Parts: sequence; C-alpha cells; structure tokens
Amino acid sequence: MQGLDIPDAAISGIDILVSEVGPRDGLQSVSQIMPTETKKAWINAEAAAGVREIEVGSFVPASILPQLADTAEIVAHARAIPGLTVAVLVPNMRGAVAAIEAGAHKITLPLSVSETHSLRNLRRTHDQVLAEAKEIAGLIATLPAERRPHFEGSLSTAFGCTLEGPIPDAQIARLAEGLMAAGCDEIGISDTTGYADPAAVRRLIALLHGVVGPQALTGIHLHNTRGLGLANALAALDCGLTTLDSSLGGLGGCPFAPGASGNIVTEDLVFMLEAMGLRTGIDIDRLIAVRDILCRAMPGEPLYGFIPDAGLPLGFNTAGTRRIKEAS
Amino acid sequence: MQGLDIPDAAISGIDILVSEVGPRDGLQSVSQIMPTETKKAWINAEAAAGVREIEVGSFVPASILPQLADTAEIVAHARAIPGLTVAVLVPNMRGAVAAIEAGAHKITLPLSVSETHSLRNLRRTHDQVLAEAKEIAGLIATLPAERRPHFEGSLSTAFGCTLEGPIPDAQIARLAEGLMAAGCDEIGISDTTGYADPAAVRRLIALLHGVVGPQALTGIHLHNTRGLGLANALAALDCGLTTLDSSLGGLGGCPFAPGASGNIVTEDLVFMLEAMGLRTGIDIDRLIAVRDILCRAMPGEPLYGFIPDAGLPLGFNTAGTRRIKEAS
Repeated sequence: MQGLDIPDAAISGIDILVSEVGPRDGLQSVSQIMPTETKKAWINAEAAAGVREIEVGSFVPASILPQLADTAEIVAHARAIPGLTVAVLVPNMRGAVAAIEAGAHKITLPLSVSETHSLRNLRRTHDQVLAEAKEIAGLIATLPAERRPHFEGSLSTAFGCTLEGPIPDAQIARLAEGLMAAGCDEIGISDTTGYADPAAVRRLIALLHGVVGPQALTGIHLHNTRGLGLANALAALDCGLTTLDSSLGGLGGCPFAPGASGNIVTEDLVFMLEAMGLRTGIDIDRLIAVRDILCRAMPGEPLYGFIPDAGLPLGFNTAGTRRIKEAS
Repeated sequence: MQGLDIPDAAISGIDILVSEVGPRDGLQSVSQIMPTETKKAWINAEAAAGVREIEVGSFVPASILPQLADTAEIVAHARAIPGLTVAVLVPNMRGAVAAIEAGAHKITLPLSVSETHSLRNLRRTHDQVLAEAKEIAGLIATLPAERRPHFEGSLSTAFGCTLEGPIPDAQIARLAEGLMAAGCDEIGISDTTGYADPAAVRRLIALLHGVVGPQALTGIHLHNTRGLGLANALAALDCGLTTLDSSLGGLGGCPFAPGASGNIVTEDLVFMLEAMGLRTGIDIDRLIAVRDILCRAMPGEPLYGFIPDAGLPLGFNTAGTRRIKEAS
C-alpha cells in the first residue's frame, strides 16, 4: 500500500482485506452489459456493507470488452466514496495512462506465466509484458506523490494453464523477479484456471516469498472452478497473505481460458473469515442484500454462494465481527 | 484400527482414508428407497474405484428409516469385498447387537454434544447414551478377537447445534472423555449442522487431542452446508487427522437438524487430496463414473460436486496418484 492516494481506512481496523472483483472479473464474463448506474449502485452498496477495496473495471478497448467501456466514469464515481480503494485492471501502457487519468488508486497489470495464455489474453510475449510494466512504472514515477497509484503485477495462470498445463517453478520465479525489477510495488498471484490446490498455494507462496520477499506478495486471486476456492484461501491465509480477491455471487471467471469459471464467492469468503475470528470490516447481512441488485439487473444470470441459502449459524454475530463461540 | 477383523488393505499404501458415507448418510436423507441390488452395485463400484471404507447403513428401526431397512443384507454383501472396511451406524445397544451379528467391521454410536439434539435424534440424554456406549463396549469385549468390531463414539453437532447454538468446550471435552471411559476404541467429531469453520476445527481437534490423545481421534465428518467443507477438511488434515468422511455427489445431511444438508463431496475431496500429493488409493475417473449409478437409480435427486463438471486440470495424473507438477 505505497500509493499515497489509498485511503487509510482501507487497511485500518481489519485483519484481512477482501477485494471485490465482481464489477471487473464478474462483468467481463457476462455477455449482457450492465448499465453504468447499476454498477454505481452495486459499488455503493458493497462499500456501505464495509467492503474496502473494489476492482471496478478494466481499461481495455471497448471493442474487446464492451461491458467495461464505462470504466473511467465508474472510477470517478467510486473515488468519491470515502475509505474505498478503487482498483482497475490494465492490459498495457495505454490502459495505465487511462487509469491514472481517471484517478484509480491501484492498477493491476496481468502477466500470464503461461506464455501461450499471455499471447491469447494480452497478445504479448513475456518480455513484451515486462517491458510494458517497466514503462508503466516509469510513468508512475514521474507523477506527483499524491497521484501515484499502487502498481501491482499479477501472475496469472500461476497454478497451471488450460493450454500448457503446469508451469515450471523457475519460470514463475523469474517472472516475479522481472515484475519487481520493472518497478511494480507488489506482485499478486492468480489461479485463473481454477487449478490450484492448498499444497500448491502454500508451495508457490513460499517460493515467491523467498524470491521477492513477503512484503511484495500479500494478495491472491482464486477461482472456485473445482470447489477448492475456500480451502485455497485458507492455505493462503496460513502463509500470511492478507488480501483475498472474490466476487459477489461468484460472478466471473476468465473468458480467455476455456472451461475456467467462477471466482470465489465474496459472501462465503467473508463468512469463513469472520467465523474464524478474522475481521473483514464487512457486515455479512448487508453484503448478502447487495445480491438483489445483481438479480434485478441480470435476471437469469446464475449467482453462487452457500451462505445466502443456508443462512448464518445460530449464535453467529452478524455485525461484521466475530462469532460468539464461548457463549452459553 | 484395533478391530482385528478390519482388512489390512484399508490402511496400507495410502495417506488418507476417505470413508464413503453416502449409502448411510446420503440415503437416509432421500425419501425414495434405493433397491438393495442398486446399493450393492454402488458399493461394489466404489470399492472397485479404490474406496477402502464405506458406511453402508444404519441399524435403526425400519419404521424410522425404511431406506436403510436392508442394512444387514448390505453388510453381508459388502463384507465379501476384499480390502473393504464395512462400517455402520448404530443408535443403541439393540443396533449394535444387530451390527455385530451382521458382521460389520466398524460400528459408530453417535452422541450429540447438544443434549437438545440428542433427545431429538436418539431420544436419549447424554448419560443414557454414555450408558449405552458402556453396554456396547461390554458386549464387544465378550466376543472372540476375530469378531470384535472397531467401536467409535462420534460427537455430533460438535461445532454447534441448530437448536442450541454453540456448545461449550467443557461439555464437549467431558463427553469425549465419557465415551473413551465407556470403552470406545476411538472418538470422532461430526459437523452435523454445517457450522464448522477452519479455526473451530483446529481448536476443537487440539482440545480433544489434549483430552483423549491423538490416537483416539483420527477422523472427522464434515458437511458442506455453508461451503466451507473442504476448507474444514484441510484444517483437519493440518491437525493430523487421517480419516475423512464424505458422500458421493454430496448426497445427504441430517434429517433431524433443520436446514442442515450436504455432506462434503467424495469426488471433490479425493481431487483435493490427490492434488495435494496425498494418496487416497482412489481412481478419480472411476469414482466419478459411479455417479451414473445414482443418477439412474434416483432421477431428479440433485448430485453435487465441482470436479465432475469442471474436469481434471490439464496434466493431472488420473491414476489415483499425484499430479505431475514438476513436468515440462
């Protein structure tokens, strides 16, 4: 959190930062286009429920992802919400320029550790993406301190690729070093394909903490394609990670990785964390209520999640704080 | 595994024993009655896929659970399968007598740590269940060694009750001690209500290992009611547990705990374990194929699971052994 513009509230008083990615990763997977006003209402409602960071969009050409064509307007809106860190995805320097102009607090550049996926997703080789990262970091360095966004390089397909299969450790380590050398503030890891398992999560985090240091890897982006999403999140917590991406209703996935679908569900993740006594700052009941906005806006689009159906356990404190376990 | 009758194969060559409970916990939750021959085919197919322990039924009055009225015949059939541990649930001494007569390798007596649930489920107080456990252990002690079943006392609603809420640690510890003092070979813990979270799993296992010793608690029965089933399984593995109950297609739950539903899914559990490099002895592809038996026998009954839909990751070794992670 070196970006001076990030609200302090985003990381104060909580143990784990749940970063909502639905408005970006979710909506890019849905063919219908959500109206800008609905996106704003969604973001407002999640922030009001206590969510401190939201990835609100992606600065990609509207011809590729028309669902996210209004990202600049969404960023401008979200920036006005007190205490909210406004994150966006950028595929390249052009996207980064737009993100900085719009005033995003955090920008994430994905680098697929599978070069095949990188070519498919960003149409760039590894070296080309690393060069782009260096160019973006260079631009950020020229900005006055108060306008500098936090710059993350995210290692996608980190647990294997649907096109290439497993990616060698040495290649992942080299790319992590490359991103930090290019000037990223931090790296992230992403299970784009839903291939991760808890042992692999622990192994990769340990490897990368060794390579870039624990301060340079604090977050992970997990999918629930094969049902292991929350087990993988637990493994990441055990390794000391403190930022977990998730999507309301599990909306999303990667449209460029065949068969990959389903982010981990924000509602279930928050339940797990709060049940474990880890403070997220999020009120689960208010969070669950946000689903109504998605249901109304996208009828027929499936929403996932267990806790919205099963309800909270009897005796669970719903005030966004921990369960009263020792009661009675 | 003190029961001399348990096949050695059940625990040799594997790291984790996946105990299939679908024919008991699954079928007791389904209103339609599965034909005896279909149950036999299901058990045969799972054993052929490498499953080493199956809870095949429950010795309860047919008037209460007509779905399990053929348990004696099923036990006799399953005993003939080489290498398979045949487990059954018994609610009381009468059930234990029937289980021993039928030749079950393992009998489990549930003791709900919530006395309200105990009265509702078994119609007995804690003291009455402990007295029953003592009587059963006394009977087993009179048997010749080769006929003695392994006797487990299972602490159900261990993570909270839908009627009482959280149960105090001291009460759970006292009941665990009570079961061992009564003569059980082992205790188990069961998240009957789907209230567990990973921190609670770790805390309760540590508590009970302190009370009865690690050898006396090696297994856990988890539900996936709130989506945390596999995360809880991971937490249990971390604490050294080596037996995990699960149900094919997630069939099941407890009909006497309102709102509780869904065992963890055997297919997804086996995938997680094998992906982590833990040997289960189970061939996932053959296991997934067993679902066809359930689909045909119970059309309209929902089957759960992620891995049957998503498929195995590219490069995953499907031979019931570990993933080739370092390849390429």
